Amino acid sequence: MVTAALAGASGYAGGEILRLLIAHPEIEIGALTAGSNAGQRLGALQPHLVPLADRVLQETTAEVLGGHDVVFLALPHGQSAAIAEQLGDDVLVVDCGADFRLRDAAAWERFYGSPHAGTWRYGLPELPGARERLRGTKRIAVPGCYPTVSLLSTVPAFAAGLVEADVVIAAASGTSGAGKALKTNLLGSEVMGSASAYGVGGVHRHTPEIAQGLAAAAGEPVTVSFTPILAPMSRGILATCTAKLRPGVTAADVRAAYEKAYADEPFVHLLAEGQWPATQMTYGANTALLQVTVDEQANRLVAVGVIDNLAKGTGGGAVQSMNIALGLDEELGLSKVGVAP
Amino acid sequence: MVTAALAGASGYAGGEILRLLIAHPEIEIGALTAGSNAGQRLGALQPHLVPLADRVLQETTAEVLGGHDVVFLALPHGQSAAIAEQLGDDVLVVDCGADFRLRDAAAWERFYGSPHAGTWRYGLPELPGARERLRGTKRIAVPGCYPTVSLLSTVPAFAAGLVEADVVIAAASGTSGAGKALKTNLLGSEVMGSASAYGVGGVHRHTPEIAQGLAAAAGEPVTVSFTPILAPMSRGILATCTAKLRPGVTAADVRAAYEKAYADEPFVHLLAEGQWPATQMTYGANTALLQVTVDEQANRLVAVGVIDNLAKGTGGGAVQSMNIALGLDEELGLSKVGVAP
Amino acid sequence: MVTAALAGASGYAGGEILRLLIAHPEIEIGALTAGSNAGQRLGALQPHLVPLADRVLQETTAEVLGGHDVVFLALPHGQSAAIAEQLGDDVLVVDCGADFRLRDAAAWERFYGSPHAGTWRYGLPELPGARERLRGTKRIAVPGCYPTVSLLSTVPAFAAGLVEADVVIAAASGTSGAGKALKTNLLGSEVMGSASAYGVGGVHRHTPEIAQGLAAAAGEPVTVSFTPILAPMSRGILATCTAKLRPGVTAADVRAAYEKAYADEPFVHLLAEGQWPATQMTYGANTALLQVTVDEQANRLVAVGVIDNLAKGTGGGAVQSMNIALGLDEELGLSKVGVAP
Amino acid sequence: MVTAALAGASGYAGGEILRLLIAHPEIEIGALTAGSNAGQRLGALQPHLVPLADRVLQETTAEVLGGHDVVFLALPHGQSAAIAEQLGDDVLVVDCGADFRLRDAAAWERFYGSPHAGTWRYGLPELPGARERLRGTKRIAVPGCYPTVSLLSTVPAFAAGLVEADVVIAAASGTSGAGKALKTNLLGSEVMGSASAYGVGGVHRHTPEIAQGLAAAAGEPVTVSFTPILAPMSRGILATCTAKLRPGVTAADVRAAYEKAYADEPFVHLLAEGQWPATQMTYGANTALLQVTVDEQANRLVAVGVIDNLAKGTGGGAVQSMNIALGLDEELGLSKVGVAP
Repeated sequence: MVTAALAGASGYAGGEILRLLIAHPEIEIGALTAGSNAGQRLGALQPHLVPLADRVLQETTAEVLGGHDVVFLALPHGQSAAIAEQLGDDVLVVDCGADFRLRDAAAWERFYGSPHAGTWRYGLPELPGARERLRGTKRIAVPGCYPTVSLLSTVPAFAAGLVEADVVIAAASGTSGAGKALKTNLLGSEVMGSASAYGVGGVHRHTPEIAQGLAAAAGEPVTVSFTPILAPMSRGILATCTAKLRPGVTAADVRAAYEKAYADEPFVHLLAEGQWPATQMTYGANTALLQVTVDEQANRLVAVGVIDNLAKGTGGGAVQSMNIALGLDEELGLSKVGVAP
Repeated sequence: MVTAALAGASGYAGGEILRLLIAHPEIEIGALTAGSNAGQRLGALQPHLVPLADRVLQETTAEVLGGHDVVFLALPHGQSAAIAEQLGDDVLVVDCGADFRLRDAAAWERFYGSPHAGTWRYGLPELPGARERLRGTKRIAVPGCYPTVSLLSTVPAFAAGLVEADVVIAAASGTSGAGKALKTNLLGSEVMGSASAYGVGGVHRHTPEIAQGLAAAAGEPVTVSFTPILAPMSRGILATCTAKLRPGVTAADVRAAYEKAYADEPFVHLLAEGQWPATQMTYGANTALLQVTVDEQANRLVAVGVIDNLAKGTGGGAVQSMNIALGLDEELGLSKVGVAP
Repeated sequence: MVTAALAGASGYAGGEILRLLIAHPEIEIGALTAGSNAGQRLGALQPHLVPLADRVLQETTAEVLGGHDVVFLALPHGQSAAIAEQLGDDVLVVDCGADFRLRDAAAWERFYGSPHAGTWRYGLPELPGARERLRGTKRIAVPGCYPTVSLLSTVPAFAAGLVEADVVIAAASGTSGAGKALKTNLLGSEVMGSASAYGVGGVHRHTPEIAQGLAAAAGEPVTVSFTPILAPMSRGILATCTAKLRPGVTAADVRAAYEKAYADEPFVHLLAEGQWPATQMTYGANTALLQVTVDEQANRLVAVGVIDNLAKGTGGGAVQSMNIALGLDEELGLSKVGVAP
Repeated sequence: MVTAALAGASGYAGGEILRLLIAHPEIEIGALTAGSNAGQRLGALQPHLVPLADRVLQETTAEVLGGHDVVFLALPHGQSAAIAEQLGDDVLVVDCGADFRLRDAAAWERFYGSPHAGTWRYGLPELPGARERLRGTKRIAVPGCYPTVSLLSTVPAFAAGLVEADVVIAAASGTSGAGKALKTNLLGSEVMGSASAYGVGGVHRHTPEIAQGLAAAAGEPVTVSFTPILAPMSRGILATCTAKLRPGVTAADVRAAYEKAYADEPFVHLLAEGQWPATQMTYGANTALLQVTVDEQANRLVAVGVIDNLAKGTGGGAVQSMNIALGLDEELGLSKVGVAP
């Protein structure tokens, strides 16, 4: 058995990692830590995690987290580096925060306002070459939820050179993506029956991460217009992505590129033609469901993808990458079946 | 008092028109008709309309609808022309369907698959020149809900020549926009906790209507990429709209154009800088709330608008245009205050 | 015109009072005050109240609130008495808090843990004799939202002696009833897709208020078992109420008692037989919709009532009682039409 | 491996059974059948069941269903008997419909209006003696969703003689409990933001099933007042249950009875004192979470329980009972961890 510790067990990302690790046949769950909630029973904070209800949260220190084979970090941005440094190089550290996702230090500093901590292997195995880079690594940067679905929805088109290097993405997310923070705009009374936009105008922190992934696929810089929408649901992201088609590209070319890209992927599925994805189809699952079409009038490719932001978008992606890094079966502990309706 | 009849009283659009007419100080509600629901008490179908609970729905015929000063048509697409022809030229006919919205007969036939019935005055008073064209008219085509919010969000930019003639719109709508039709994908179990895209790739029928409005504002054809999203809420549309900025256009230019366009409008409001709209702010109200910004990195204007699809997007827009056509105070019977939270 | 001030303008109750006062033809809205939000634009806090967006909130003091004909208090429990004392006896003070609802000082102290401030006229005009007691009064205690719907649903049965003095009420409420407080269990992510019970076992503070109203109707003490349920919606309360039938009472007796009780009430409606209320029917309206039946097997009356907790349950009830106290038309500024769907 | 067939694969109950069987390590999924949807790809109807997307639904006949070790029936009430008769006595038939739940033929006929088909072993293993009766059986009647949570919430009190034989239950359910039927009142626009009561007055078909279970526990007939509430969520039931305490019963007695009843149960959990259940805690899981208290003022026990109506309330209960009947580990294929938030 592989032992795993988790820092940040009282938040939504931490809770999702635990939900998945409980079902993972090769993982033994070790220390669970928290910040201000240290000392509390997990059952008081995450009552859905019934088998761990009596676990008591410890302080988030390297001493507590050390001595496990894997350490998951589900901490606020900027806190991972200090902990990671104290964990040995033989420990697999899986960071669900943003700290090690970007390669461009200037972009990091512009969007996060703090010094760049470095760059780890990017935990989106379905990107070209990514799976191989994850094997055996000891440091994984789990992608952001918006970048996960945005990149899965568009990379095949950019990698195949089908579209111009200028993409517009509008993505509707459930509220859990904003975490458990106590903010008025996240109250149930505010979000139910309401949709809103936020982080508009290229200021959302996931924008440079999407641009980084697309540039790698396209082999050139890609301009990204990204607008996140807060939708009245707890989980799920739906991304609508569009880019101008390059001359001569047909609908058949487009479909072929996506089919080829994901033919062997266990968790990413192009739906049958004419069927469009809904976030519910991926609720609690590690799947991404996609559809793509061509808008003849506007000469655009339009791709739509859905994931569960906490599952494939955070905890599931983390566990999948961990499986690869550890040399385990990539699918262990992960579901391909959404909890629907 | 002005007498008003309504065809299609059992549906969502019809119910919303009645909700507003009940509160209208100059309207006396006359005949109410329905299709298969003729003969039923309104209270059994629209129990929220308490003051009209004992009204019995009649058959939808010109005989029943005739003899009123105003006739609202809230019928399935394609059914308005036959009824309207039989109503005298002295009757104000307000059509909430699509039949008379488009000027381009070919576009109509391509998107609706039936012969074009004609073009009436377009009931979006905030468009340049539209209010004047509505005064005294006897035939009004109420805009679609998506075009209402999309045009209000973008026309000032196109009219001022700030952006290129190529716009990308992704809009999240509540389910009432799809009407009371009994379809599996509209069941509560399917839509709650879920977001989905539909009509993707330029095939949604509101696409040519948006293009028509933008072309009029821009003075040239505008390419429209439109992606509608079904969001888990009953009412409300949030539209995110983006287009490339023309050279030299600044954020100040953009804000000034919107401020000028809507300075005197009673129902359309540009929010204070930095505040972003949520659909809840317009729930049940005839308001449209907007915000606009510039994405420096992507060189794009991004405009976000919200309306209540049934209010400003259908019934409220219909009543507002009726007020203008009849020479009444434009604001009569219409609220500027959303029912929030 | 009657001038009105409001203390507590940044909360949900305060926002709802303003929503209604904006539409009230006899009211001129004066000073608006807040606690920690004093100094802010109302538009930043209550963006749905478009016509008041530029109002700036003042400090909650008797100086600011004085000099108006009416003062609404939408303050946390325990804060109303100190303010009210400083307002003259010629000012109509309408308290939306709990401070002056209970007659039994011991019950107050047991449930609220502070000294009893006194008892004002109870603002539920539909209770026997209540409307008369409100005329001309200068002090009104607006009922709690749960008591409003619970009493409207059951008082006719108790007043007519149809049931035993032992009632069981389970009521599902939207989250706005809990206010804008920043609590984890009120986050959208927690409440969407979820129902929970709270205040179980007779400990909810509305329990003695329900018991007080029922005892007055029954002419004897009534035992109340009250269980509130938090439902995933912003607004609305549905109360299910059941009590044992007294010997010989028939379904016809029950229906007759409710019909008689509410025959002349403008805002309370017994639905047609066989039709059951949904909270959506009252969204934003001052209506209460009821249905009642007899369970032959269990020998119980079962009454179900719905209101909008913020409208009839708070702000609407406050305005209705104000209208009566001021000698205005009781229906002024209040809607009988729900915003549905 | 055990082979399993399913009749009714296009509905919500059928979909949930498949969701669980996919994850079941000892089950091989065989024939899937449907009524009007026969001939369709499962992926078009249940797109969340990704691994089975290409399965084609067959006609529901004994020929198709025969030849498997287990046959699940997720059919409309009244259709199971005819199929079951044609399946051999060596086939385990698990009926998710109501046909074989009731022992009292007269009650069946009164509530279902058709001849009584018989009585099978009742698939609620946590009831006294039920687990033993399920071992080795070839015919299982899966309980209704409301009876599952109602009985789990109250049987310990009745079995221990703590309460009088007169219980009041109000239970809020998600819409999936009503199935995929195309009814106006189940449309998303109608249910979102709204709570309603239905089947009020003892007429809901689950009432006699609850009474049957309680009578068995109490050793005497129990009067049941049952009011179901439709809540705006896809899944989940919250039951609030109350009955008068017998003389001398203390809160400690109550807690002790529940602790004892469920101490060894893998899926039923009494929460820590003071913590109240929310349906989200059981989303997708086979768990039931309970809390119980004493209302001193009303002299009542109040028990609150939550389940996922499709999981523990239908498909999970079915799989759990199948496991027992087949002699497998009872927990196989079933989760104790809810998908939250």
